[in-house]
Amino acid sequence: MEPRMEPCRLLVCRTPEDDAALTIDQAAIDAAIARTGGAVSIEASFIGSGDPEMADALANATALVGWRLPTGLIRQHGAGLRLIQLVNAGIDNLAPFDWLAPGTALCNASGIHAAKLQEWAGMVLLMLHAQMPYFATAQRNFMWSRRASSLIAGKTVLIFGTGALGGAVARAARGLGLHIIGVRQNAAPAAGFDEVIGSASHGDVAGVAALAAALRDADFVVLTLPLTAETRGLADEAFFAGMRPGAGFANFGRGALVDQPALCAALENGGLGGAIIDVATPEPLPPDSLMWQAKNLIITPHVSCDDPATYVADALDLLTDNLKRLGTGRPLRNRVDPARGY
Amino acid sequence: MEPRMEPCRLLVCRTPEDDAALTIDQAAIDAAIARTGGAVSIEASFIGSGDPEMADALANATALVGWRLPTGLIRQHGAGLRLIQLVNAGIDNLAPFDWLAPGTALCNASGIHAAKLQEWAGMVLLMLHAQMPYFATAQRNFMWSRRASSLIAGKTVLIFGTGALGGAVARAARGLGLHIIGVRQNAAPAAGFDEVIGSASHGDVAGVAALAAALRDADFVVLTLPLTAETRGLADEAFFAGMRPGAGFANFGRGALVDQPALCAALENGGLGGAIIDVATPEPLPPDSLMWQAKNLIITPHVSCDDPATYVADALDLLTDNLKRLGTGRPLRNRVDPARGY
Repeated sequence: MEPRMEPCRLLVCRTPEDDAALTIDQAAIDAAIARTGGAVSIEASFIGSGDPEMADALANATALVGWRLPTGLIRQHGAGLRLIQLVNAGIDNLAPFDWLAPGTALCNASGIHAAKLQEWAGMVLLMLHAQMPYFATAQRNFMWSRRASSLIAGKTVLIFGTGALGGAVARAARGLGLHIIGVRQNAAPAAGFDEVIGSASHGDVAGVAALAAALRDADFVVLTLPLTAETRGLADEAFFAGMRPGAGFANFGRGALVDQPALCAALENGGLGGAIIDVATPEPLPPDSLMWQAKNLIITPHVSCDDPATYVADALDLLTDNLKRLGTGRPLRNRVDPARGY
Repeated sequence: MEPRMEPCRLLVCRTPEDDAALTIDQAAIDAAIARTGGAVSIEASFIGSGDPEMADALANATALVGWRLPTGLIRQHGAGLRLIQLVNAGIDNLAPFDWLAPGTALCNASGIHAAKLQEWAGMVLLMLHAQMPYFATAQRNFMWSRRASSLIAGKTVLIFGTGALGGAVARAARGLGLHIIGVRQNAAPAAGFDEVIGSASHGDVAGVAALAAALRDADFVVLTLPLTAETRGLADEAFFAGMRPGAGFANFGRGALVDQPALCAALENGGLGGAIIDVATPEPLPPDSLMWQAKNLIITPHVSCDDPATYVADALDLLTDNLKRLGTGRPLRNRVDPARGY
């Protein structure tokens, strides 16, 4: 039996960009409380991220849930917050973290995107293999131009990131019969990966060579990394030049992991066979971006990870679990390390 | 032990459209003979479909393999052919069959496309579910426009055709957790389908009602039918109007199964959520076709069924098996019924 807690005064911070299906309302919170069997008590209030009442609302709240946070106001008025539960995974847009009080835990929603991304990534790997970016470009040019493809089984995928998102891509790749190599900071094994390579960020010469060889051999290269000072611009001209000619590329992480002009150049000169990206810089990608017309590039608008049927419930289950953990002093789930950046 | 046969004088008829990877050469034939353990003997000659020596070549041959056949010359000079082995499945381009001598067996390559189509169809079902035709159109209009999708499991697919191609689509759908309904001329059960509906071609009132209900309920509708007098133009204005608003459509059969202006209209008015077609009328689709720019339509150039790694070998294994069957008087595999049209 969980000890009874004081009611959590929860502030639900909404942004104009929220999809209707991803919006947290009182009914969703009531349902989440019901799923705990009443083990948490929540008094929720709802506010738009730009609302003039935000300062007062923050001063009165003990927890906050949302994804675009009014960090300046939180610094001034949010010292009483014990928990900020993000409903998204990436926290790069919140850095630097000087607005975060020492007594406030920041947790992200890493993991709730896995089932949807697994399905999406399976589709994207098949699309890269089947030359769909090439056919999309041919269609834009009114050209019926055949390119045959064999079966995908036995190909190799190199996945940057072995966390919740990378693991989801790996499960998709396993279902397709691929050989799966992961890249993470250290070379410790990761469930679902056939091999793991430690990234070269610390000057490990063997790691650098192994990574270069894996990049050169992979049929598909997929990014699922968080955006940090170390990963920004990772996929640059040298990166694409190091890939096998004709290979496919996908990005499910953050747009700024990619040097976009370098990506377009690698596609244009044919070094890269095709690319499918779900993230871009900036988002939304403006109508005058040259990316829209880049050869052999398919762009989707950051929809690979959000399942509208389960997203809000999964995020709120994380919130209620973390509220219970706060009440009993247990470690929180998905607590973010501001120094590390994810 | 198979009885030793007279050497087959095989004419390999090539067309300029043949992909290099799908071209039959002497090495491929030698390999096919080796796979029979020498049970067949073949003297092969190779000729272009428009070669002026075709008449003499036909007069000297006992078997022919190819896909675009010189039917007029076969009528005049090919009476000695015992077997014509097609390397493709559809025979609509060869009708009417008044050029076919009574002593010549015509066999198609139905079945050798199944593994590739299964993989391709899985991709296409995921793409329809994920709104990829919508995103492709948005990209052409330089628009970042989000549409969330949930998981595909539990959706329903209606597959027209329960043969080799329809069965391959059904296996793909099974892997995705779909409910699978097949449509065939009679309502006999078909392996891999949860339900089978008899088509309405013979005025069966219950069948008409069941088909209309299935069309209205399906999330995805897929055509894998051969092109015959009965199936030509099957997917017309009434067909698309009978589909569930927002549903997805795919065609792996023949372009002329679809009334293309009706398809474009259904996409344009939003009744149809999206479509992905691998076949069109005519092929190649000319640059001035309005299809290229139709809203929420993805076009691929008839590549869904051909695996370059296995296609030639699988087709030649059919040929050698049928040559052995001819030698021993057993029924041929994939013998086509010209009266039926497939």
